[in-house]
Amino acid sequence: MTKNIKLDNDTTIGNKDFNIMAGPCAVESEEQMDRIGKFLSSIGIKILRGGAFKPRTNPNTFQGLEYDGLKILKAIKEKYGLLVVSEIMDPRDVELGCEYIDIIQIGSRNMQNFALLKEVGSVKKPVLLKRGMSATIEEWLMAAEYIRLEGNEDIILCERGIRTFSDYTRNTLDLVSVPIIKNLSEYPIIIDPSHGTGRRELIIPATKAALAIGADGIIVEVHPEPSKALSDGDQSLDFDGFKVLVDEIEKLKVHFY
Amino acid sequence: MTKNIKLDNDTTIGNKDFNIMAGPCAVESEEQMDRIGKFLSSIGIKILRGGAFKPRTNPNTFQGLEYDGLKILKAIKEKYGLLVVSEIMDPRDVELGCEYIDIIQIGSRNMQNFALLKEVGSVKKPVLLKRGMSATIEEWLMAAEYIRLEGNEDIILCERGIRTFSDYTRNTLDLVSVPIIKNLSEYPIIIDPSHGTGRRELIIPATKAALAIGADGIIVEVHPEPSKALSDGDQSLDFDGFKVLVDEIEKLKVHFY
Amino acid sequence: MTKNIKLDNDTTIGNKDFNIMAGPCAVESEEQMDRIGKFLSSIGIKILRGGAFKPRTNPNTFQGLEYDGLKILKAIKEKYGLLVVSEIMDPRDVELGCEYIDIIQIGSRNMQNFALLKEVGSVKKPVLLKRGMSATIEEWLMAAEYIRLEGNEDIILCERGIRTFSDYTRNTLDLVSVPIIKNLSEYPIIIDPSHGTGRRELIIPATKAALAIGADGIIVEVHPEPSKALSDGDQSLDFDGFKVLVDEIEKLKVHFY
Amino acid sequence: MTKNIKLDNDTTIGNKDFNIMAGPCAVESEEQMDRIGKFLSSIGIKILRGGAFKPRTNPNTFQGLEYDGLKILKAIKEKYGLLVVSEIMDPRDVELGCEYIDIIQIGSRNMQNFALLKEVGSVKKPVLLKRGMSATIEEWLMAAEYIRLEGNEDIILCERGIRTFSDYTRNTLDLVSVPIIKNLSEYPIIIDPSHGTGRRELIIPATKAALAIGADGIIVEVHPEPSKALSDGDQSLDFDGFKVLVDEIEKLKVHFY
Repeated sequence: MTKNIKLDNDTTIGNKDFNIMAGPCAVESEEQMDRIGKFLSSIGIKILRGGAFKPRTNPNTFQGLEYDGLKILKAIKEKYGLLVVSEIMDPRDVELGCEYIDIIQIGSRNMQNFALLKEVGSVKKPVLLKRGMSATIEEWLMAAEYIRLEGNEDIILCERGIRTFSDYTRNTLDLVSVPIIKNLSEYPIIIDPSHGTGRRELIIPATKAALAIGADGIIVEVHPEPSKALSDGDQSLDFDGFKVLVDEIEKLKVHFY
Repeated sequence: MTKNIKLDNDTTIGNKDFNIMAGPCAVESEEQMDRIGKFLSSIGIKILRGGAFKPRTNPNTFQGLEYDGLKILKAIKEKYGLLVVSEIMDPRDVELGCEYIDIIQIGSRNMQNFALLKEVGSVKKPVLLKRGMSATIEEWLMAAEYIRLEGNEDIILCERGIRTFSDYTRNTLDLVSVPIIKNLSEYPIIIDPSHGTGRRELIIPATKAALAIGADGIIVEVHPEPSKALSDGDQSLDFDGFKVLVDEIEKLKVHFY
Repeated sequence: MTKNIKLDNDTTIGNKDFNIMAGPCAVESEEQMDRIGKFLSSIGIKILRGGAFKPRTNPNTFQGLEYDGLKILKAIKEKYGLLVVSEIMDPRDVELGCEYIDIIQIGSRNMQNFALLKEVGSVKKPVLLKRGMSATIEEWLMAAEYIRLEGNEDIILCERGIRTFSDYTRNTLDLVSVPIIKNLSEYPIIIDPSHGTGRRELIIPATKAALAIGADGIIVEVHPEPSKALSDGDQSLDFDGFKVLVDEIEKLKVHFY
Repeated sequence: MTKNIKLDNDTTIGNKDFNIMAGPCAVESEEQMDRIGKFLSSIGIKILRGGAFKPRTNPNTFQGLEYDGLKILKAIKEKYGLLVVSEIMDPRDVELGCEYIDIIQIGSRNMQNFALLKEVGSVKKPVLLKRGMSATIEEWLMAAEYIRLEGNEDIILCERGIRTFSDYTRNTLDLVSVPIIKNLSEYPIIIDPSHGTGRRELIIPATKAALAIGADGIIVEVHPEPSKALSDGDQSLDFDGFKVLVDEIEKLKVHFY
């Protein structure tokens, strides 16, 4: 049985519903986040994603607004009654981060950053644990175990594509990991169709498959103007595209729960 | 637009239906095939799979009944009004094979066996072209092009899992290849959840995802007694399991077409 | 112990020497092959490579001169006293091919083309069996077993790079496969630094490593004008570059045998 | 040109010599380290490896002696005049670690732990940066750039095998990365034949290839009784095996520098 992760605003993850977490790759400005927060809350989305600390391959690219980004996230979530999921990369930021965000995201690059896992294991916030780019199922569940052993059992797993030879998509989305995780653990599992494919036109089909294969939701990139996004624009939906996604999933999901 | 591949008994592949091709990994005996053919036809399945020529990694393992297997397939298909899909591995067997089978399967190991591709390109039988274990999307479509250039445009693509580091499943099923193929070509595409996962308990969830992501069907291994199968028993459904699969897909598919 | 494969002109593979097989990716014309044959024989090379049948991903690209290519190879080998290694892709070409070439190459795409393996297993010509792009060690040795069981034990294995996520080189050259093969079998094993790296500047270092790790030789692409080659120019040495390679290996090899 | 990294006891890395860093996977006890330190110094080895903090996949397995391990390393290095390389996993341990060790190792799992990279970038100790399991060449060099931009240019890269489909070895050792790194950067690069192969019998051939392809050294696991090692015994040499390695490399290396 999948355990339920209860969040503040009557939201539960893992409870026979399909949660859609959405927002930009990176928090870019208060104005940007206000547009997105307003839009998402207007169509019933409850969890806003947005990166304040950005783990970028190249140190010379935009690294996120950092603490200022956290403050923006908090302001927007309070204004629109949203919950916020955002990545923390440094164990020294965990305690402060907990004051601003509702779900702590551990990114793929840090799936085996054991110092960080132990730190988020010792706080009382749900953790979204992304699968490492080349992590086996066992390594992923063992990373969750590092968190759980410190006392935090509110863990949501996130499949975001694995690294393979295949070059048409950014990663190879391992959708079959969903029923595997369901068989081996009690953790809810969601899909990241943005990183998992890297291509906007594949997000809706991948989300339908995620629903059908038993995932508890998705985390997806939405941006008011994807072509102007500071990162990951190619894998972000615009507002109209996102509305199509939500509508299609709403219609389908009654047949799966 | 996906093109329709018209087959003999009023069956079409690619025509907004979800085709389920089923049968054992290998043709083992007339008695075995009779049980399977009778069962499948009784629940409305129209296409029987079964290997007469088996491409086995180890030359000392069962290689299939070869021509005797083809004869059994033909007898069973006539008795129960089924169509037959079966693999041909040698260009010299293509012409004779056409007398026995309805859809010629090209296996993963032969996806870039260009002599074989040209040979099946020159006959008038639909070809089921499985993706190679480490084939990119482009290489797969180019393999189809080898067939098409010889004059045969009745090509059905089959995603059957790619080879990655991931070790929990036999292969990593690249479900996202379905909408990619739909965007790039007109060929119908089906999924092989048996080889794609290698584990019986993952076949039904993978099939639901295949339906949801837009596949035109599946090819799945069914055996009356999987534990006694001469090959691939772990990834074969028994009759009861297969009925569950068919029932679940029947209920769901009305929401997708 | 590595077995010795004895060839016609007093050449042995596997006999504590480091064989350098060289030539163009494709036979393009008699004039081209004459230049290359003359050059190679002038510096003591004994085995000429050159593709008559070219397995190309795209059917619309140059497919080789086919039978005319075989004839050119035979003319050049007789003129300069060389041996010839060339790929055969169709089982129906094996018998005729034996009249023209000295070592039959089975390419990566055909490593598990079992009809072809059986055919070359039944003739009296040494076989150069390239590793498949995603073949495990066991699958590779089992492919050799398909040849051996038909009666032909003169098998030379060739590591040519495997397909991985790594994108700087064309393939990832698995040099460590050399001592593994030595531990598990008696077959000589050579390295293909051209396909294994895809980059000219990496050929000499990769060849030194091949020598040091115990390989029995290399097969390398050499072209009088790589920038004008019909295929694989980027991974071909020109004559001057090839002379440097030969000189460096000559100096080093005395320390390894 | 490769830059020289100057260390305390007249040792330089990158200076046309082949450095052999050796020691156990994990610091297990003072007695164990004393035996190893005594042995290594007696045969001229200058750099001792040994893990105090062990990044283990499973949180229930031995995690290293941690600070006690650092103290043992310091005692042994002073007793035998060795330098010590050891992994630091938590940015909060970097400053203290610098008091105990001479080269800070960043492990594969932390190659993109940017908080940790920045921290080791701000101290005055050479850093050994292992390649991530699925890191491209560009990602690896960009990780080094995170360190360099903080002011620390004493970076030694370490290729330790990448994760591929290949299952005979623990990882696939990408030896060709050595000349690539030499072409693209000024950093010295060493090979880890223990993790790169996972098999004791492959360490010596892999080391010879590392020397031949231009590496600046290796880091290798040595244990007095590999069968009793708390981790990685299968890929550790015993003292006799290690002496064979050192002797063979001593004889060969004069031909490469």
